[in-house]
Order: sequence, then C-alpha cells, then structure tokens
Amino acid sequence: MKRVLITGATGCVGRQVVPGLLARGWDVHAIVRRDPPTDISDVTWHRADLLDRQETERAVRAARASHLLHLAWYIAPGKWAAAPENFDWVTASMTLLRSFTAHGGCRVVTAGSCLEYDWAYGYCSEDRTPRAPRTTYGVCKNALQMLTAAMAGINPELSSAWGRIFFLYGPHEHPDRLVASAVRSLLAGKPALCSHGRQIRDYLYVQDVADAFVELLESDVAGPINVASGRPIALKDIVERIGQMLGRPELVRLGAIPQAATDVPLVVADMTAAFERLRWRPAHTIDQGLEKTIGWWRERMAQSEAVTWA
Amino acid sequence: MKRVLITGATGCVGRQVVPGLLARGWDVHAIVRRDPPTDISDVTWHRADLLDRQETERAVRAARASHLLHLAWYIAPGKWAAAPENFDWVTASMTLLRSFTAHGGCRVVTAGSCLEYDWAYGYCSEDRTPRAPRTTYGVCKNALQMLTAAMAGINPELSSAWGRIFFLYGPHEHPDRLVASAVRSLLAGKPALCSHGRQIRDYLYVQDVADAFVELLESDVAGPINVASGRPIALKDIVERIGQMLGRPELVRLGAIPQAATDVPLVVADMTAAFERLRWRPAHTIDQGLEKTIGWWRERMAQSEAVTWA
Repeated sequence: MKRVLITGATGCVGRQVVPGLLARGWDVHAIVRRDPPTDISDVTWHRADLLDRQETERAVRAARASHLLHLAWYIAPGKWAAAPENFDWVTASMTLLRSFTAHGGCRVVTAGSCLEYDWAYGYCSEDRTPRAPRTTYGVCKNALQMLTAAMAGINPELSSAWGRIFFLYGPHEHPDRLVASAVRSLLAGKPALCSHGRQIRDYLYVQDVADAFVELLESDVAGPINVASGRPIALKDIVERIGQMLGRPELVRLGAIPQAATDVPLVVADMTAAFERLRWRPAHTIDQGLEKTIGWWRERMAQSEAVTWA
Repeated sequence: MKRVLITGATGCVGRQVVPGLLARGWDVHAIVRRDPPTDISDVTWHRADLLDRQETERAVRAARASHLLHLAWYIAPGKWAAAPENFDWVTASMTLLRSFTAHGGCRVVTAGSCLEYDWAYGYCSEDRTPRAPRTTYGVCKNALQMLTAAMAGINPELSSAWGRIFFLYGPHEHPDRLVASAVRSLLAGKPALCSHGRQIRDYLYVQDVADAFVELLESDVAGPINVASGRPIALKDIVERIGQMLGRPELVRLGAIPQAATDVPLVVADMTAAFERLRWRPAHTIDQGLEKTIGWWRERMAQSEAVTWA
C-alpha cells in the first residue's frame, strides 16, 4: 500500500487533500502538533512540533512513508508575510526533508507560492519569470524551493515537485481574506468595503488546489509547477458576483478603501506547463466555487450565530 | 570593547583573520568543535558542534558578541561541491544566525563564494550577474545569502554583509589545490601536471582575503560584496611563475591533463563595488603572494621530511 506523510493536514488545503488521497487508495499518515482533529477520519496521526528536530525525526521514522506532502508553514493572520518565523520554517523544512530522505523517502511535494515570483512581471511562468520575492515569506519559500531541487538533484532516489499556489478561496479560509470577508459581510447584511477592484489575479477553489496536489504527488513531475485556474479575473468581478448571488449587489462598495501602495495590477499564472504535464484540470468555475463557498459560510454562520469573527 | 564571535577560526582564512582582529582591538571569541588549537593565541574558545542546535545556542549565549563572522562550512576535499552536508550547513547557519540575533547581535559577515554566480557570464558583478549556481555548495551558499539578507531586511537592529570569495591561495591551503599542489611538486623535484592553463581566474592571497573580512566586519557595507584581487590571471601564468621562482620551469607540464568538461574560460570579479565601498585593497601582488606561499611550504616540508602529502 502506498503511504504518504502529510504536514499541514488540518489546514484549508490539507483537509481537502486527505479524502482525495484516501479515495485513491493511499495509506495516509499526518503530523499534527497538538491533539488530532476529530473531524478528519482515517488518518494515522503522529504528534510532533515540526520546529523541534527530535520530534520531527521521531515522527518521520515512525511513519516510514515513501511519499511526503509538505503543506505546513507559519501562517499567522496579518503577520505571516514579514515574520521572522518564516526562517524557522525553512530550517524545519530542511530537517524534515533530510530526515525523510534518510529513511528512504522517494518523492516529496511541497506547497510553494506565487509570492516567489517577481510580481513586476505580472504573468508568472515557471521557467521564464524571474524570482524576486518582496516578502520574507516569498524569500523563504523561494530559498527552500532551490534547496529542495538541489537535494533531489544529487539524490537519484528522490524526486521532488513544488506546487506554486496563487490565490485560493473556499471553506476553512481565514475569515478576513477577500472572498470569505465579502461573503460574511453580505450574509450579515453589512457592506463589503473594497478597493477599486481592478487588480487582476488568478483565484482557484481550494478543492481544486487540493486535487492538484494529489495529482502532483502521484505524478513524476519534477520542479516548480503553477497551481492556479488559468482564468484571470478582476477582484471587482469576484465581489460583484458574490453580491449578485446573495441578492445584495448594493452592499458591494468598490473604491471604499484605498489600494495598498505595494499592490500591482496583474498577478496571473502561466498554466501551460501544469496543463501539459498533469492530468489535473480545475473542476470548478469561479461561479461554482463561490456558490459552494457561500453555502459553507451560510451553514457555519447559521450553526453558531454567537460566533463573531470580526 | 568590541566583541566578535568567529566560526571557522581554524580554517585557512579564519586563522589569518584572528590576528587582524586582535590588532584592531577586538575581543575575539570563537566556536571550535573539538579541542582549541594550540597555535592560535588570545582567543576565547567556545566548544560547540555547529550542527547541534543546543550546543550552538549555548555557545552564542556564552559569547554575548555584538558581531559575528561566519566562515565555517563543510569543506571535505573532493566532496564539498556536491555533498548533502551542504544542506545541513544551511540549517546550522540559520540556527546560528537566529540565535545570534535573539541575543542582541547587530552585525554579521558571512563567507560566500563566486560559485553562487552563473559562471556562463564570466564577469561576476554583485548586482548584474545572475545567480545560477551549478553546484550543491553554490546553491546552498546562494540560498543562505538570500535568507540572511531577508533576515536583516526585517530586523532594523541587524546589518549583514556577504563576502563572495573567488579563488584563494596561501598558507594552510589544502595541498591538492592548484597553487599548493604545484609548489609542492616542484619543491619535491617532481613535474606539476596541468591542463592547458588558459582559464582566466581571479586569485587572491589568503592574507588579503582575511583582511577584506576584517574590513567588512568593521564597515557598514550591506549585502553581497566580491572578495578578489581585481587582477585576472591565466592559470598557466600562475604555474609558470612558480616554476621560475623555484628555478624549475621545465617541470611545469601544461596540457598534461585534460580540461574538466564543466570548466569555463573566464571567472573574474567586478571589484568596482568593493573598492568603492571598502577601505581595503589587496596588499600582495601575485608574485608577493606566491613568494610567501612558497616560503611557507618550504619551511613546512623541511620541518617534517617524513610527511607525505601525496
């Protein structure tokens, strides 16, 4: 039986990846820092703090997995982009990877980010677009990508792929991010305050992100690969669709907040390589993804009217 | 009193750096893995294996230095370029740096390498030449450089510089490297077997390399800076000078061994930035450096005729 070890299994991508792997017959092991979650089934949990070398090595040794799906990272809201903890996650990831290969691991797939690219280029292509990350998070992911590729380069037993996630949305997303925040505001009958919204991005429904990682893990694709929809969209189009779907278009307030000084007009993914090399395609249009996301938030907010995210 | 903590103090650059720092009034602390060396004086030694996180943190805490000069790395002869240990040294360096900043360190200078550059460009300039290292060593140094710069970027208390060493020669160099090997062969009356020798490189005497690092440490120069002579020379000119100095030009056998398939015609340093930003200049011409190197090997080989390096 194929066995995979996952980090970040309780995150918004990770929890969608697990059923996908189980459905394809994988024996799923996962590292969890505290108590195993009660709402994720059929996983063998290994308790370890990935920032602790001994605990990490113990968990990797216990799991004896041939495959590693490394999704965990420091993601504290509002702090992740510039936090010094990003450096600790490079160190933690290197320790994890060295331990995994020392115990016979043969394939690793890691979550990268569009923030590794130089956003001044707008159109992000794996081979052509320079990497010039402006955030600490992007520098750390970019450095780890190069180190991981070099590790596979000198180890014929190891193959590695690196999925660069662009913009995602869907269940379990942090409530302050664009889609979640707009949906929640409108469901509560409050205005959704936006910038001008002409920024063009590539948004992908989190289930499709998860499916791409399952496919990447099972493929022999090596190196960086973009994980996106290939269908760029203006932010205002996303928010206006949410307004229409919820029957409250008048609550969408474009131009109500200023654009961030560091904002750029275009960040989209060249999906040529991904679509040529992976059997995967996004299964959700933006409308289908938004419908599901709205349904999830509606249920969640109804279940607990006492919950106040803001 | 200014206090600096050095790693790699017993290496060929490190042991020349120590007297330079002492002469400028530094309180010199150094991390050593085993017993402190008996031939380096006036240093406070801290015993630690840099690959061990707890030992590293303990040594950094004990040293309480404001400055860090990080020269240590994995340098096993014949193996360093492609060894997986390079990855462990990235991790070790990150741990060292995080610990140093956590204990109030304010300036770090690290030894980088011309192997970080894309050698296809020949002329290596800090700002313009792309980094595209072909060796594991180069990938790891390049990744660490980016991480170090990013760490200083989010920490206003920390300044960092990165000295990219090109080609060095002098006392304590490994006996199999170009200059040491040619000198030893000719001193022993044996032929020095070389390739065609038309490759152009930038060679710097190790004392000058060390002086550059002392100057870098005391300066506020930030980011990568080339450490080289700015006077490119063909390898055959170096070897032929050694032949003349030792009165055995007939023992120099150019073309006796094939050029390595990965060899490139030109690897030289743009020294504009270094000479503009540092008060340092190389103090030795190639002839002066070679004379001193020959003197050192002559003494060493005379002291112990029983020593067989080959």
